[in-house]
Amino acid sequence: MVVGTSVQRVDGVAKVTGKARYTDDFTMPGMRVAKYLRSTIAHGRVSSIDTSQAKALPGVDGVFTFEDVPKRIYATAGHPYSLDPHHMDITDRYLLTDHVRYMGDEIAIVVAVSDLIATKALSLIDVEYEPYQPLVEAKDALAKDAVEIHKGTGNVVKAHSFVAGGDLDAVRKECDQLLEGQYKTQIVQHCHLENHTAYAYMDDLERIVIVSSTQIPHIARRIVAEALEIDTGLIRVIKPTIGGGFGNKQDVILEPMVAFLTKKLDGIPVRLKLDREEGMVGTRVRHPFDVKVQIGLDQEGTVKLIHFDALSNTGAYASHGHSIVSAGAAKTHYMYPRAVYSCTAKTIYSNIPAAGAMRAYGSPQMTFAIECAMEEAARTLGMDSAEFRLRNGARAGDKSQITKKPIMTCGLLDSIKKGKDLIGWDKKRALWPKEQTGEVRNGLGVAIFSYGSGTYPVCVEPASARLILNQDGSAHLQVGATEIGQGSDTAFAQMAAESLGFSFSKIHVVSCQDTDVTPFDTGSYASRQTYVTGQAVMRTAEQLKAKILHHASIISGLEATLITISGDNIVISESPEIVVMSVQDVAIDAYYNKERGGQITAEATYKARNNPHVFGCTFVDLSVDIPLCRVKINEIYNIHDSGIIINPLMAEGQVHGGMAMGIGAALFEELMVDPDSGKIYNNNLLDYKVPTIMDIPDLGAAFVEPNEPTHPYGSKSLGEPPIISPAPAIRNAILDATGVAINELPMSPKTIFKYFKNAGLI
Amino acid sequence: MVVGTSVQRVDGVAKVTGKARYTDDFTMPGMRVAKYLRSTIAHGRVSSIDTSQAKALPGVDGVFTFEDVPKRIYATAGHPYSLDPHHMDITDRYLLTDHVRYMGDEIAIVVAVSDLIATKALSLIDVEYEPYQPLVEAKDALAKDAVEIHKGTGNVVKAHSFVAGGDLDAVRKECDQLLEGQYKTQIVQHCHLENHTAYAYMDDLERIVIVSSTQIPHIARRIVAEALEIDTGLIRVIKPTIGGGFGNKQDVILEPMVAFLTKKLDGIPVRLKLDREEGMVGTRVRHPFDVKVQIGLDQEGTVKLIHFDALSNTGAYASHGHSIVSAGAAKTHYMYPRAVYSCTAKTIYSNIPAAGAMRAYGSPQMTFAIECAMEEAARTLGMDSAEFRLRNGARAGDKSQITKKPIMTCGLLDSIKKGKDLIGWDKKRALWPKEQTGEVRNGLGVAIFSYGSGTYPVCVEPASARLILNQDGSAHLQVGATEIGQGSDTAFAQMAAESLGFSFSKIHVVSCQDTDVTPFDTGSYASRQTYVTGQAVMRTAEQLKAKILHHASIISGLEATLITISGDNIVISESPEIVVMSVQDVAIDAYYNKERGGQITAEATYKARNNPHVFGCTFVDLSVDIPLCRVKINEIYNIHDSGIIINPLMAEGQVHGGMAMGIGAALFEELMVDPDSGKIYNNNLLDYKVPTIMDIPDLGAAFVEPNEPTHPYGSKSLGEPPIISPAPAIRNAILDATGVAINELPMSPKTIFKYFKNAGLI
Repeated sequence: MVVGTSVQRVDGVAKVTGKARYTDDFTMPGMRVAKYLRSTIAHGRVSSIDTSQAKALPGVDGVFTFEDVPKRIYATAGHPYSLDPHHMDITDRYLLTDHVRYMGDEIAIVVAVSDLIATKALSLIDVEYEPYQPLVEAKDALAKDAVEIHKGTGNVVKAHSFVAGGDLDAVRKECDQLLEGQYKTQIVQHCHLENHTAYAYMDDLERIVIVSSTQIPHIARRIVAEALEIDTGLIRVIKPTIGGGFGNKQDVILEPMVAFLTKKLDGIPVRLKLDREEGMVGTRVRHPFDVKVQIGLDQEGTVKLIHFDALSNTGAYASHGHSIVSAGAAKTHYMYPRAVYSCTAKTIYSNIPAAGAMRAYGSPQMTFAIECAMEEAARTLGMDSAEFRLRNGARAGDKSQITKKPIMTCGLLDSIKKGKDLIGWDKKRALWPKEQTGEVRNGLGVAIFSYGSGTYPVCVEPASARLILNQDGSAHLQVGATEIGQGSDTAFAQMAAESLGFSFSKIHVVSCQDTDVTPFDTGSYASRQTYVTGQAVMRTAEQLKAKILHHASIISGLEATLITISGDNIVISESPEIVVMSVQDVAIDAYYNKERGGQITAEATYKARNNPHVFGCTFVDLSVDIPLCRVKINEIYNIHDSGIIINPLMAEGQVHGGMAMGIGAALFEELMVDPDSGKIYNNNLLDYKVPTIMDIPDLGAAFVEPNEPTHPYGSKSLGEPPIISPAPAIRNAILDATGVAINELPMSPKTIFKYFKNAGLI
Repeated sequence: MVVGTSVQRVDGVAKVTGKARYTDDFTMPGMRVAKYLRSTIAHGRVSSIDTSQAKALPGVDGVFTFEDVPKRIYATAGHPYSLDPHHMDITDRYLLTDHVRYMGDEIAIVVAVSDLIATKALSLIDVEYEPYQPLVEAKDALAKDAVEIHKGTGNVVKAHSFVAGGDLDAVRKECDQLLEGQYKTQIVQHCHLENHTAYAYMDDLERIVIVSSTQIPHIARRIVAEALEIDTGLIRVIKPTIGGGFGNKQDVILEPMVAFLTKKLDGIPVRLKLDREEGMVGTRVRHPFDVKVQIGLDQEGTVKLIHFDALSNTGAYASHGHSIVSAGAAKTHYMYPRAVYSCTAKTIYSNIPAAGAMRAYGSPQMTFAIECAMEEAARTLGMDSAEFRLRNGARAGDKSQITKKPIMTCGLLDSIKKGKDLIGWDKKRALWPKEQTGEVRNGLGVAIFSYGSGTYPVCVEPASARLILNQDGSAHLQVGATEIGQGSDTAFAQMAAESLGFSFSKIHVVSCQDTDVTPFDTGSYASRQTYVTGQAVMRTAEQLKAKILHHASIISGLEATLITISGDNIVISESPEIVVMSVQDVAIDAYYNKERGGQITAEATYKARNNPHVFGCTFVDLSVDIPLCRVKINEIYNIHDSGIIINPLMAEGQVHGGMAMGIGAALFEELMVDPDSGKIYNNNLLDYKVPTIMDIPDLGAAFVEPNEPTHPYGSKSLGEPPIISPAPAIRNAILDATGVAINELPMSPKTIFKYFKNAGLI
């Protein structure tokens, strides 16, 4: 068995030895540097711009403004194209703008022979603005006399509304209790190690080649084509090793610009690389949500309804804004699927940095609101928090209220039970004093989550793979899905090896995607790859295996039905100890026999029509230092039902990473915007507090593993979910410790101080 | 129709504007430079080598000698692997040697941060030799007491012998006349514009990547694997745009070394680039032949037998030496296939630069001998040279004496007739005086040739292609065959467009080969690509077309049998003016429909089992200035039967290039070796006389186009043949003008002077 074992990551050595080559590690002779001129105000219009001095500077190849770019409005959100005209991404952006929508908006760009000259040239551009009032908060953006950030929108990107699972008003009337709460989440930045970077050139056949740190090379290709009005076939996107993305590279941010620049400049290579300060504001952030939740309960403690009214602030451009709320709502509704589930929501434009996709795509915000509200419900009922969730949480056989399909596998309740055991819930509850009064008080918290394994049926879910049998009996595996650090290449190799009957070392992954030749896949997002792309890999492997057996049958005279592959050999199916020949023998004959055979390859596309639900929870034991307003996590566990785990060690690593990010969002991180000017206070990693190794406690990860029937190896998603439930679990533990409900993120000392002060604790 | 039209080369603009990027146009951060230490004697043994000073030089990463390289003997000839153990290439080489076999042999290599430091380091290596007597000429190499250049060989690479088409002795007895002659050809260098160059590095998955100017990336991959004892799956060879090869890059010369160096140096990129002086001697040259020919004739002027005894000098290493003579003999025997055809031959080792594959692979040498001998025969019989060839030349329906298969199409006699017309043969013969006496005398000459379209049945003939339907309705075409300047990418695109019903502009060729992902093909040699790979392209196109029609049928409800593709649209087969939908509509649905479809791709391998014969001739009208010993070509025509021509303008260009090379070999070029020391006199383009544009007359190209039934578009080979017949045609015209038979090449003033002097002309 290769699947289910902790084989070493295929890219492990290169990454830990520093040998891995990222986009910036490649160069080309004659490569130029591009740099943006960014607005110094948050809202307004460029009234005049003079680039003549910059253009005259020796070493400057070109200076381009909003006047020079295609008069073509486009969308940057990295979704697959939709055949449904009502389901298109929102086109609200030109390559450069004269209508400034956030502080840092791109109004011009310089291309020069060096970074230094480009920087100098930027300083030589004279810009004058007609300033407008910055609209930072919802009340400002939605004010009647507010300037429209995008014409004709009233500063509303989209209003959402749905009810699933019953008649909201009728059920509301049946409830014994209705509880309400309001919860706010902050602006978070992804802070992937590798900043956004891309370069482009024109190849020998006059086609544009873009090398980019992207999660979605095939989608980027289409969006560049749209932005520049060029055929997709004339554009090629290459994705080398990437230093993280977390959704920020599911937006097509730099690629259209580098393509435009190389085209303008006769094909010379042009690199555009954001520094950390630019990237913190000039890429995408997580949408801050303001959510009012209503929970309806009966007297037995059953949740009858969950209604929320959410306000999501997408900032200067729509990006993924139109779909974050509905995705967050849809994916969280599996937590309590027997309740009526209702959402009204509004996503607004404002003059803050554009928000986009970020790990778990709306779910962390929604889950924070719901799991805070559920905690109030449990407390109101006087029920144990874990027991309350065991009573109301999803079970296999429950139906999705939205798709009306049954939940096939559900390890939620087992996760909760496992979490309780791991943290010693009942023992601590029994031992700990009921009332705490000291300066340092202990608390236990829990929160659950649910998520999906892809985007179906909202979006198309295509994935393709190709396998080539090499002369040495190994196989090269090409996938369109992208390794972005999550370990997908290794998981794919494991699944291919398992399906083929090959040793793991015989699968060579072509890790770099190249849209000219890489099988089509929409990329890395929505935790879709192991589930969706994995099935393309396995279908391709089955096809390759059949072709190998067919040729082995031609060579050996044995019917193909009598033989199979095991341990890199062709063996008799019924007596696998009998080796007929090696797979390499088959390969050599196929390649080199003069009269028969040919290169043995296989290629398949799979479109997922299922989207199994994943579940899990966080349990936390923490101490709160009341005077210092400081939280110390003593123990924390994430327990996941992601189906059968393909690689336990990698899965644990994935969970650890997500928990650390979740703790960061819970306790530390916030991109802070001045409400009056729209200025960003902390566009750098000194002032923006990403937790370091010293801030993160030991992390516990555990799994329950139901065998998901819609996946050949029983697997479901894991990539994003670990980030979802730490924040509400921590909040609930602080509440448990102190009696104070902190309803906004981050729960940094500053926030906690405010709440403790209000509560009279200090 | 796209096939048969002179569409513009897909790489034309990039090449004429200088934008095309060759191997040396790519670089990588940290790239190092490697330089060989080459022997300063032609034959001997390194008795001591001291690299300590070189190693100590700052900036030197490593110095490696024969002591450091794998103890693994390998072959560099770029043939496909053979399943027949008797048909393997000759393994006679290590990466570096202490047994010096030619002046310039590779005994050590330096890797340094710059060219300058590498050069300096070379100068710091102390070498002492035990010199042996250089064995330059056959008589020396075959002398009884000669040192063995390769142990156990007696300095004979291979002895060949075959008789085809009858009993040689019996037919000899029936002949009315037996004529004999002896003919010598010189050492020629390919002189491709781009020197040999390659670099290598290790990728993120610890595999070796080699970027190389090679004709045979897939074969290079295997040979590197053999030389370094690494699995082929761990090696990746990439071929960018290439500046010519002519067979010299059908040898795997630099690739094993760069792979070895990067592996030794922890994966850092290492470039090894030969300069012109090194490349002239350190790569491969054309084998010089010394051929005795016997022609048997009956009294009607029918050629009854052709026997030759050939001596081929392969120099220091076998390379292709063991197969050049037999290939040359086999491919020339189609000229006069009704005669008994007999060959005895020996290929020897000597201390001259290694000879390998070069355009037409032995045929120019053999054809020079045969067509000189035929001219003597015609003159002896008093027959017109052209009439003699019309009587004896091949006709469709003749059988190959070797394969016993019929010649399916043969335009030889039509070529001769066309050539006679073009040059005004009969008119000039009638008008010109029978006896010329002036200083400048005019002559007419003709020579014919035959050739193959690949290597089957000697070698396996596999070719593969892959097509991907893009979202814009265009298609990407990947082939393993290599564009090396001959125009194959354009021809493949034409065939794909034609087979698919697409416009030519809708086919995007992936011109760069990458063995990780490029369909397997043995590469560019033996004039195989249009014939062999073309059929893989068309089979793949047929497959893609069927898949497109299948999906169009799903969308439209029309049976797939009712529809076809024309003008980029799905149309009704019987009424092609009725457009059902565009191909792009099919593509968009296949990619993005949520419930059906998938990326539409096709991939196929074709193994050729036919090898159709091509034919043609050169007609020349020239003037000889007797006192100056100088030849001036007044008119020259090559007429080719290459079946149906895919792209007339490109074909004409290919013929022009081959004729120019043929004229160069006829009149100018010779790599000169000192017979005593083995020193090369003219290892540079100043002293080695490649003809320039001023030396080449207007070139005439014409075609006869029988429809070859074994190729869907009726095509046969064209790449190499244009070089074959100019030299003997020119020699025969000089004979016609002066009565002097010049039986060695090149017919430079120096050679001509010797012959004229002997003949008493001067």
